[in-house]
Amino acid sequence: MSPDLTNIAKLSDGWSSEPQIQHRLDLLNKWNIPLGSKVLEIGCGQGDFTLVAAYMVGDQGHVTGIDPAPLDYGLYHLNQWHKSRADNPPGAPMTLGETQEKLKQNPIGDRMTFYQSTLEEFLDSSVSEQVYDYAIFVHSVWYLPSADALLSMLAALRGRTKHLLISEYSLDVRGDIAALPHLLAAISQAEFNSRGSALDRGDNVQAIISPPMICAVAQKAGWELQKEDIVESPEGLEDGRWEVHRVLSEEYTLRSGSSEDASRQGFASALIHAVAESNRALGPSQKLRTLPTWLGSWV
Amino acid sequence: MSPDLTNIAKLSDGWSSEPQIQHRLDLLNKWNIPLGSKVLEIGCGQGDFTLVAAYMVGDQGHVTGIDPAPLDYGLYHLNQWHKSRADNPPGAPMTLGETQEKLKQNPIGDRMTFYQSTLEEFLDSSVSEQVYDYAIFVHSVWYLPSADALLSMLAALRGRTKHLLISEYSLDVRGDIAALPHLLAAISQAEFNSRGSALDRGDNVQAIISPPMICAVAQKAGWELQKEDIVESPEGLEDGRWEVHRVLSEEYTLRSGSSEDASRQGFASALIHAVAESNRALGPSQKLRTLPTWLGSWV
Repeated sequence: MSPDLTNIAKLSDGWSSEPQIQHRLDLLNKWNIPLGSKVLEIGCGQGDFTLVAAYMVGDQGHVTGIDPAPLDYGLYHLNQWHKSRADNPPGAPMTLGETQEKLKQNPIGDRMTFYQSTLEEFLDSSVSEQVYDYAIFVHSVWYLPSADALLSMLAALRGRTKHLLISEYSLDVRGDIAALPHLLAAISQAEFNSRGSALDRGDNVQAIISPPMICAVAQKAGWELQKEDIVESPEGLEDGRWEVHRVLSEEYTLRSGSSEDASRQGFASALIHAVAESNRALGPSQKLRTLPTWLGSWV
Repeated sequence: MSPDLTNIAKLSDGWSSEPQIQHRLDLLNKWNIPLGSKVLEIGCGQGDFTLVAAYMVGDQGHVTGIDPAPLDYGLYHLNQWHKSRADNPPGAPMTLGETQEKLKQNPIGDRMTFYQSTLEEFLDSSVSEQVYDYAIFVHSVWYLPSADALLSMLAALRGRTKHLLISEYSLDVRGDIAALPHLLAAISQAEFNSRGSALDRGDNVQAIISPPMICAVAQKAGWELQKEDIVESPEGLEDGRWEVHRVLSEEYTLRSGSSEDASRQGFASALIHAVAESNRALGPSQKLRTLPTWLGSWV
């Protein structure tokens, strides 16, 4: 365990698993953000990346995390993680607001600020810096309804940050069959959320926006691509398992069965079966792997 | 090369590749249909399976192939296969009718009869037997618009055949990453054809109807499942490559971009990117594999 991982795990006080922290360290190591940087994190959620970034920018740096989700938003992933812990403690923070509040209380809490806001509202507000060093999306792109939504955000960021950094899952399992259930689970959720009227904000995947789509949108918004990278998921990163778990839940099957169109309905059911089969084929030993992450850097 | 394969390849006169014939022999070996059987094949297309089945039922048996497609229907797969042959001969049969006609002329041609008909019309007609020994679907289920269409067919077959046999691709790659591009290409085509108004009959995949869906539908129609099996694709079976080739064609991308709904459109584009990535990841050595085939038998 690296000293950084040990230190951040201590700061996180158990609310972020070690593989989650390690994954964010891996992203930051690729991006190589200098000490003292002013970072704007878009779609910070419960602050998993915010904490790791705040540690890495040092005491002269700052990370501002924004997310439009309600502060009483229940965190599916966080709940799953708590349930999986042997020491599942009572009174654990279970909402976005509670988790952010808890992060603010730790020794590097003053390097982080959280705002409940859309990007556009935030940039128009008096609390936003005029220019950030880095604007960063960490696994928040698939939470957008479409590439068009990303386009307006990237356009709004022109002139307001020196660097743009985006990381999102790759649609390429890179030869690892153990990541196939995660890929198919993402496709299944995106199928549901591409039905005009049927959005479920509880899904972590609203749309599978692929790296070529992200690059196309960034270019359209005036950004110049500097570098692409791939980071493999560290052993034990739970996201893939959680997404598969969600798709195979009874609640999900019921919800997915709500289409009035028979062929659409059949397509959705077959995707769930494909997730189930790919998961079953891996055997009982929990070998399921989280998809690799693609990274892009723009100026 | 087995004697059966050699003999059938000779009868096929080069219009069906050896892996295509081998695959159909593999299915028939699992099903073990006795000599002298009267077979009804539903969705016979160009007659690839019809020929192999006609060979296997012997001179006392008979195979009736029905397909509602127009006889001047151009065969995408056949065209691909012809193009790939070094000896691509002029005047090759290129339509459903021409290919069926050619099969009728070979030495076992009188064991085969072809009708251009839907199943329901055929069963109501005077040319249908009252009861067949076997009614067989070979890779024709995904060509139906939905599981509901299969349900009416299986219901219509009750009392008109002693055995029901269905084979269709599995949604499980069975640990073989080389079949992933085929799975994703099938998902992509099914996505397009699940858009209410946008059916393209040129796609070999109209709907991905999974084995559990086929079993549920057969049960609903009154059939009792006797046996399930899996048959791996023989080396060189081209179907997976053809489906991937189709999805990655310019024509397909253009067609797929026709949705007016941005999130639907994005979903379709991302699926095409996933096919491209999974295909690229296999490298240039044409390692792409056709999905395994699932088989079911009912009485």
